[in-house]
Amino acid sequence: MGPYRRRPPPVRKVQGMALVDRVLLGPGPSNPYPEATAALGAPLLGHLDPEFLRVLDETCARLRVVWGTENARTLPLSGTGSIGMEAAFANFVRPGDVVVVAVNGLFGERMVDVAGRYGGEVVRVDHEWGQPVDVERVLAAHPAPKVVAAVHAETSTGVRSDIGALAVAVHTRDPGALVVADCVTSLAGIPVSIDHWGVDVAYSGTQKCLGVAPGLAPFTVSERAWERRLPKPPTWYLDLNLIGAYVDGSNGGRTYHHTAPVAMIASLHAALGRVLEEGLETVWERHRVAGERLREGLGELGLELFAAEGHRLPELTTVRVPDGVDSAKVRQILLSDYNLEIGAGAGAFATSVWRIGLMGHNARLDRVELVLGALRRVLGR
Amino acid sequence: MGPYRRRPPPVRKVQGMALVDRVLLGPGPSNPYPEATAALGAPLLGHLDPEFLRVLDETCARLRVVWGTENARTLPLSGTGSIGMEAAFANFVRPGDVVVVAVNGLFGERMVDVAGRYGGEVVRVDHEWGQPVDVERVLAAHPAPKVVAAVHAETSTGVRSDIGALAVAVHTRDPGALVVADCVTSLAGIPVSIDHWGVDVAYSGTQKCLGVAPGLAPFTVSERAWERRLPKPPTWYLDLNLIGAYVDGSNGGRTYHHTAPVAMIASLHAALGRVLEEGLETVWERHRVAGERLREGLGELGLELFAAEGHRLPELTTVRVPDGVDSAKVRQILLSDYNLEIGAGAGAFATSVWRIGLMGHNARLDRVELVLGALRRVLGR
Repeated sequence: MGPYRRRPPPVRKVQGMALVDRVLLGPGPSNPYPEATAALGAPLLGHLDPEFLRVLDETCARLRVVWGTENARTLPLSGTGSIGMEAAFANFVRPGDVVVVAVNGLFGERMVDVAGRYGGEVVRVDHEWGQPVDVERVLAAHPAPKVVAAVHAETSTGVRSDIGALAVAVHTRDPGALVVADCVTSLAGIPVSIDHWGVDVAYSGTQKCLGVAPGLAPFTVSERAWERRLPKPPTWYLDLNLIGAYVDGSNGGRTYHHTAPVAMIASLHAALGRVLEEGLETVWERHRVAGERLREGLGELGLELFAAEGHRLPELTTVRVPDGVDSAKVRQILLSDYNLEIGAGAGAFATSVWRIGLMGHNARLDRVELVLGALRRVLGR
Repeated sequence: MGPYRRRPPPVRKVQGMALVDRVLLGPGPSNPYPEATAALGAPLLGHLDPEFLRVLDETCARLRVVWGTENARTLPLSGTGSIGMEAAFANFVRPGDVVVVAVNGLFGERMVDVAGRYGGEVVRVDHEWGQPVDVERVLAAHPAPKVVAAVHAETSTGVRSDIGALAVAVHTRDPGALVVADCVTSLAGIPVSIDHWGVDVAYSGTQKCLGVAPGLAPFTVSERAWERRLPKPPTWYLDLNLIGAYVDGSNGGRTYHHTAPVAMIASLHAALGRVLEEGLETVWERHRVAGERLREGLGELGLELFAAEGHRLPELTTVRVPDGVDSAKVRQILLSDYNLEIGAGAGAFATSVWRIGLMGHNARLDRVELVLGALRRVLGR
């Protein structure tokens, strides 16, 4: 009979969150697969519980399938997608290393910043926003870089670049160079094939085509990169040597590093199960078809697409805001009247472009018709 | 009519996670408050949605209450507790800065590692594990350190140290020195009073007494520390200048940094609501009473406590494994036969100490009787 028993029972007087049921068609987060949401509410397990470790191992195995890799070092890092970018440079760039970065949008720009913080001598290869990465120009930028980095699916512009061609070109010239690929908006939406392409380090985020809430960064490392890792990177939290000792149970032991975000990992496990059940190629096809129908419908509304033709992502469509239309006002009406979120443009295109995502659970024809119908009404077309 | 329509509907054949309903009485994670679990399953909001930004602002306001601070820079960082430690040193330690670290357990040890990676000239003050931090010895270790760091509640040993006395002593000698406190296992379990103590930088984790799944690190920064922050720390993800531009909406604008882990933040918001409704002092009292009853009951079983008397945490009790008892076997039986998790010891005490947590939602007399009853049965006492 502790003294706290004498207190009155708690009263629900602190305001909770409003349960607003948005359709999230911005650049991410997208609405999670229902299986992913259900798993978040499952009873929590300890991070060293044998049942959780089974789920973790299985999550890594499922990630290998969607990455198209047999890399032993394939795991979810404990942070949102950007932590994957940080881990990629923190573990593989030594001070003075030449790092060639293809910049064709916001996330290429961010790579320049991050690589520089870890001491990389960055050579940037600028492209017009909305255009894909030009492999020849990237190759010509420096004769012997240690690392070449590019974004597969630029979330800021809706452009797909040919990472496979880039990786082959880089390794044909120098088999020892590392290729780093940002696959935040591509993984489980369009084909990603790490081993076939020969990409060395790649990262993604859970809140895009994987159909999970934001909070984890799937990550994969080739053998070539693993041998070139820093033995003690400047960051402790993202030191792959330490994380690997917990995640990799293959040597029979696991060493505690940080407490794994168990609920988020269970959610990723469930979403990957959903994707693999549906079939990875079917999921890609579902994204392709939805994106195609959206582009077609936007054309019917007389709207102009932003990303270069032939390089448009099905999961993220960029469209120019018509002259005289208040971009923010339209987004606000979509949100308030239709519970529908679409994204503003990024950087210099903040008010002149919209970004419409059809990712993961939202890569569906009903979402396409919803956003087309709402836009038609709001724009008066 | 996309081609994917022609495929058969998905079949549930990929194995899901077993729904094991554990009682988590280890050193964390603990079972979340039901409100926190429910919030994880609520419809997801975009990270720039006005409704989510209201929840984020309110979460920061609620964190100020549990931290006992009016610090404007009080926010949840997007990673598990350890990311708080990393942010503390990454943003406030310049190469060559003298950092005095009190080491009386695993997390003090970790501070030495992290501070060193960011270029700190670390002066460690070692204590016997199980003993609290000795303020005089820490003070005597160096005449003019830039930073003094210590752990409030050592998760590895179950010991509470007097951070208030340490902070006052450090600032009495040098008002410009920064005091960093690890409050991972103390926040919302025992009194924490950042402003009253004069602590400059403190961090916690959500999976202990806050009663949320692991995945966020509540963080707070004093004005004195803020003025001493690095303008461009080596880490991009944890650069407080950039994070602040998103979290702090007081200047009317928010700049996107990384996609906030919206579901986890909604869950923290809900748990903090629960704690504030119950009343922070009532919550502390609930922890105090539960811990006291557990220690009493362990004594009745003839078991010996590990942490120094007078410095024992109510939320985490360390107890010596009796001679001749197989520590791992007992934990395994508790898990398999009672669905009850308790923790092994840490470091050199891995097999000679158990750690029993009564944190957040688990700081209850029924949990105490459950673990005492199960231990009595398994140990045959």
